Amino acid sequence: MENKDLLFERIYELLNQKQPNKILEILSTLQPQDIAEILNADYFEQKQKNIIFRLLKKDLAAQVFVELDNDMQENLIKGFSDNELHQMLNELFVDDAVDIIGEMPSSVVKRILKNCTKDMRGDINDILAFDKDSAGSVMTPEYIALKSDMTVREAFLRIRKEGIDSETIYTCYVLDRSRHILGVITVRELLLANEESLIKDIMNENVIFVETVSDKEEAAKILKKYDFLAVPVVDKEKRLVGIITVDDAIDVLVEETTEDIAKMAAVTPIDQSYFKTGVFKHSLSRILWLIVLMISATVTGFIITYYEEAFAAVPLLIACLPLLMGTGGNCGSQASTMIIRGLAVDEMHTRDVFKVWWKEIRISLVVGIVLAIVNTIRVFLLYGFSKEIILLAITNALALLFTVSLAQTLGCLLPIGAKAIKLDPAIMAAPLITTIVDALSVTVFFACAVWVFGM
Amino acid sequence: MENKDLLFERIYELLNQKQPNKILEILSTLQPQDIAEILNADYFEQKQKNIIFRLLKKDLAAQVFVELDNDMQENLIKGFSDNELHQMLNELFVDDAVDIIGEMPSSVVKRILKNCTKDMRGDINDILAFDKDSAGSVMTPEYIALKSDMTVREAFLRIRKEGIDSETIYTCYVLDRSRHILGVITVRELLLANEESLIKDIMNENVIFVETVSDKEEAAKILKKYDFLAVPVVDKEKRLVGIITVDDAIDVLVEETTEDIAKMAAVTPIDQSYFKTGVFKHSLSRILWLIVLMISATVTGFIITYYEEAFAAVPLLIACLPLLMGTGGNCGSQASTMIIRGLAVDEMHTRDVFKVWWKEIRISLVVGIVLAIVNTIRVFLLYGFSKEIILLAITNALALLFTVSLAQTLGCLLPIGAKAIKLDPAIMAAPLITTIVDALSVTVFFACAVWVFGM
Repeated sequence: MENKDLLFERIYELLNQKQPNKILEILSTLQPQDIAEILNADYFEQKQKNIIFRLLKKDLAAQVFVELDNDMQENLIKGFSDNELHQMLNELFVDDAVDIIGEMPSSVVKRILKNCTKDMRGDINDILAFDKDSAGSVMTPEYIALKSDMTVREAFLRIRKEGIDSETIYTCYVLDRSRHILGVITVRELLLANEESLIKDIMNENVIFVETVSDKEEAAKILKKYDFLAVPVVDKEKRLVGIITVDDAIDVLVEETTEDIAKMAAVTPIDQSYFKTGVFKHSLSRILWLIVLMISATVTGFIITYYEEAFAAVPLLIACLPLLMGTGGNCGSQASTMIIRGLAVDEMHTRDVFKVWWKEIRISLVVGIVLAIVNTIRVFLLYGFSKEIILLAITNALALLFTVSLAQTLGCLLPIGAKAIKLDPAIMAAPLITTIVDALSVTVFFACAVWVFGM
Repeated sequence: MENKDLLFERIYELLNQKQPNKILEILSTLQPQDIAEILNADYFEQKQKNIIFRLLKKDLAAQVFVELDNDMQENLIKGFSDNELHQMLNELFVDDAVDIIGEMPSSVVKRILKNCTKDMRGDINDILAFDKDSAGSVMTPEYIALKSDMTVREAFLRIRKEGIDSETIYTCYVLDRSRHILGVITVRELLLANEESLIKDIMNENVIFVETVSDKEEAAKILKKYDFLAVPVVDKEKRLVGIITVDDAIDVLVEETTEDIAKMAAVTPIDQSYFKTGVFKHSLSRILWLIVLMISATVTGFIITYYEEAFAAVPLLIACLPLLMGTGGNCGSQASTMIIRGLAVDEMHTRDVFKVWWKEIRISLVVGIVLAIVNTIRVFLLYGFSKEIILLAITNALALLFTVSLAQTLGCLLPIGAKAIKLDPAIMAAPLITTIVDALSVTVFFACAVWVFGM
């Protein structure tokens, strides 16, 4: 971090001293992502950023450009001449161009499409047509295609010729004339093979692929599961139309997890980053669930009112309520969180429902008994020994046992149930479960009290 | 899924008909990970699994082996002769061997170490010595090293020679005699270069590396950020000792997120999978926080008792408590979850604390006002119009506004504060925040009530 501050200061100084060569010297020791961080930082003025960006060579500039924040990209594009924009676009991979276009206002999009080659425009429009959660939307059409009757030597010639424009060269696809995938071969296999071998003799014919309409998360999971560097994407006729590379797959996995985590906290996921999102949009993403849960809490209020006589008779009952509601909510959250994550990483499936429930029930027994014992000690320490306090302790212990097992049962059944009916399990998380468990725990607690105190 | 059931049935049938060749034919169409799934499934008996595994060719068997569950691996190793074990180990990459050893009982570990080559034993012991969260623990020493005065042609000869034993060949490291990294070059760059070029003229001298003692998550984030396929790991003297490949980085990212999510639900992370973990271990991972939070809830109970007279005078106050506590908890959870995730993916940093807090305060105003309005309508609809109900509605509205902003303030400050003092922000999540907010919201609510009702 301190290094970064120093770096920023040094560049600032050099900008003031008008020493572009020295700046370029520093930039040449950095990765594109680090140069982008400089241009994304609030530290520099827009003018200074433009100067820095214009120092970069064409290909590096393109690599930096794709890593920039959207408003910085927009600013730069507005400053480009048509010719400059054309040159920049020529350096971009199609999937990166699509990412950029997705975030630009329509006037900028028009300029971009006007200034790219006809081929690229076609590719961009094809990809833009896919649903934003589909594999098609994150693929790139720039891959290496080989023919099955090529020799390894010829394959390398092809790779050398097309490599510069392909997002990855390490996984090559062997296609027939209508672009159906016959096999896949890696550069590693090519390098270790005899130069005169025919591709069809050494390629792997068992090709794992996804369809353009598949979920992009599914595609990313395939890359993770099989340790691939790329996965092919085919259309309805099973023709190869693009590939998804491992770096994009990582981004998809991280994004999808961020979305899941937001949902688990009753927040509607937002596409943009925290800081780039306005207060109103943030509020909107949170308010819906808050209102639903707030209104639902009315039920718990009613239940408490219903037992007014009970806590009028034994006022200490009310003092125990937060503890019971809180513990129930926590147990439910623990269980549901473990299950939701298990479902997300394919560690468990809907068919495991009874196995999971049976485990949770046993866990809830262990946890419930320990909590009941600890709480009994707590009650006696706090309130001393008397008949009423003993009854209170028994009420608490019973209520804890029931509440914990109810909470954990809900915590496992609701997410799995949601998945079974094709809902996102992540919504069955802490906030919703806590609200339901609140109502249940209050009911259980007062029911136990009425029974134990013989009211 | 149905495909998998069919596949299992078919193999089961063929096992009964003693048709190994037909089974092998099926297996040859599958990826190692899919064969491992067959062997990990409960569908087959141990004996059958052994038969299936023994059908596999040496190199495929090794690829399948690393994907198996630990008990299946242990079972197989126990069935291996020393010679078979030796052959299998020869096919493994060191990092995979280390993973396996980490999960085996000591008798099996001894046999493994006895049966691997001296070099491999040394490498394994080196890696085992690193902390389990360090980059050193997930690296592999099998990489391609080039010399700076080699030509591209010579580099390819080296790659062809060593490639079969390297985990990745696509990123090659240019080392001096004492194994310091002079540069890095990819196979792509080599393929696109002139065969007679010298490596030192085309290599990239700006090498990003991690140290063996660096956090493995940091290493994984570097791979993600820079879209690398591998990152070099150096020792204290900056000598290259291993690499971390992108497939392992993905696993690290997913594991670390799973750990974060568990912590956010007040569960101590468990290394093993949900099903492989026993009921007692699961309970242990959950009980500690439950007890802490349960005991803490006593405070809220006390506060309620303190205001006994208030709710004796206006019994409806108690009915509103769950709604207020629940809403406060939910707002705090929303904020803390967004912040914890933001910190985890490096979207925000401790230095952003005021920027975040200022945003949350404004969000809490919008959210608080909307909730207050909705709740006022709710109160009037439920309880009608009367002086007491109007006062109740005012109490609720004020308490909501205060509670929501308090909850969101805590929700952003606690995780950032935790990070600032080098604690894991993930523990400052929903369960802890809810417990604190419960106490605060009850206090705020009754304080408002006493003031509004003039008690």
